[in-house]
Amino acid sequence: MNFIAEIKIMPLKELLDPQGKAVMGGLSNLGIKNIDDVRIGKHIQLNIEAANKEEAKKIAEEASQKLLANPVMEEYMILIS
Amino acid sequence: MNFIAEIKIMPLKELLDPQGKAVMGGLSNLGIKNIDDVRIGKHIQLNIEAANKEEAKKIAEEASQKLLANPVMEEYMILIS
Repeated sequence: MNFIAEIKIMPLKELLDPQGKAVMGGLSNLGIKNIDDVRIGKHIQLNIEAANKEEAKKIAEEASQKLLANPVMEEYMILIS
Repeated sequence: MNFIAEIKIMPLKELLDPQGKAVMGGLSNLGIKNIDDVRIGKHIQLNIEAANKEEAKKIAEEASQKLLANPVMEEYMILIS
């Protein structure tokens, strides 16, 4: 069966996010003022061929740990559908 | 009131995603073989100060159109919480 894994990878809350800060400055320059924090991460979508949802989740988890996310600076969340 | 807008920005389905293709190659080299497509986009989280959910959504929509997403190459989805 084919599963889609949506992986959201965000910088850890404890860390500064300079890219987010730059975007916040840009939004403010464009006149969009009501935003007080911006954080930017990655969104990765995997098409996984697996026997069941649990196996798909395991594969997505392995991919995240081995390649997609850097646990020193990022946290990830996996959603299988 | 404070709202959090989660904006998922992905490359359009019609377009190639070379970054995704590279990651798919990397996963395959690591021995993770059951993945037949990878697409990589951005995940942006905005803290919005707004009177209500509709206003927060409008601000997130404006930010996406004016700065965050490139409609020629990307599609976006907004989720307010």
